[in-house]
Amino acid sequence: MRKVGAVIFPGFELLDLFGPLEMFGLLPETFTLSLVAEGQEAVPSAQGPRAQPDETYADGASYDVLLVPGGRGTRQQVNNDIFLDWLSAASQKAEITSSVCTGAPLLARAGLLDGRRATTNKLAWAWATSQGPAVLWQPRARWVVDGPFYTASGVSAGMDMSLALIAAVTDEATADQVAVWAEYNRQHDPSDDPFAEAAGL
Amino acid sequence: MRKVGAVIFPGFELLDLFGPLEMFGLLPETFTLSLVAEGQEAVPSAQGPRAQPDETYADGASYDVLLVPGGRGTRQQVNNDIFLDWLSAASQKAEITSSVCTGAPLLARAGLLDGRRATTNKLAWAWATSQGPAVLWQPRARWVVDGPFYTASGVSAGMDMSLALIAAVTDEATADQVAVWAEYNRQHDPSDDPFAEAAGL
Repeated sequence: MRKVGAVIFPGFELLDLFGPLEMFGLLPETFTLSLVAEGQEAVPSAQGPRAQPDETYADGASYDVLLVPGGRGTRQQVNNDIFLDWLSAASQKAEITSSVCTGAPLLARAGLLDGRRATTNKLAWAWATSQGPAVLWQPRARWVVDGPFYTASGVSAGMDMSLALIAAVTDEATADQVAVWAEYNRQHDPSDDPFAEAAGL
Repeated sequence: MRKVGAVIFPGFELLDLFGPLEMFGLLPETFTLSLVAEGQEAVPSAQGPRAQPDETYADGASYDVLLVPGGRGTRQQVNNDIFLDWLSAASQKAEITSSVCTGAPLLARAGLLDGRRATTNKLAWAWATSQGPAVLWQPRARWVVDGPFYTASGVSAGMDMSLALIAAVTDEATADQVAVWAEYNRQHDPSDDPFAEAAGL
């Protein structure tokens, strides 16, 4: 059983978080899910709806899989040392650290991606990549895996990334089964990225 | 500006709710989002993570668009008269009533779909369709539109349904733009449904 710690902060992007959590959640004998935040109060997403934390950074719990969403709230979180210090420490204890969309700049600012290949949102590319000058940013990728780090491109790419992560810790047939349960047209090829071209990358 | 009332009940399916809300939420000048529940406390999803209601059924607010998710909690909600009475009344005031996955049986039990074409989750087909004997259930459909009722097949189909709904109240170009912002490979054809075949329907 692996414990997933999914980060929420004010202005997180709804689908960045709940797309992957849907996929992990369809395997309740493999994954347990926990929402982790700085405080105990409900956290508003970028779209408005609020999620309720299960644990706080100060609890110091360990997670096997970390999930860091993007969203416009990342513009504040790149300067939040309480969060970045927690993320750095939690990632060192985790088996896998993953991000979706502009979550990757948060991993970069926590010092986790230097010298690593990673990707991020294509429409926020200039700002996002500026947060990690030593990261080997990949402009044409639906998601990228480098060692224990899984980084997805924008929003919906997190679902394909999470299915690849599921395949890695279980097997491809299980990940394909999860996609069928979710009636999701899974993309298997991480290099198939029409949105890079649409963004002129 | 249209107000979206998105229902949450214990055991709602995460992506049924937050996939469409991501798409609506990317057009903040067109849609405002509200989570509506029976009580004021945080509501646990089928996968565990909790969402915080913004309003309750008893508030009696009006919504332009209703969104009813599925999830294993629907097995209780089909017998919850407080919810079904609210849904019936709210739907009569709404411009559009939509469901995802096993949300359609809830619309059926509220008496909204009799004589109408609708679809629902393919892997829960027998139970779901038994909740509405007078509904014209469509086994091969990613989503179905009949008058003011938009019903999606399982989980991920809600995202394609919500983009079709967005196209109907704005235009196709706007819906396509939302899909690009979300880096979502939008499916435009409601009759393209590989999951019906996978389920033997």
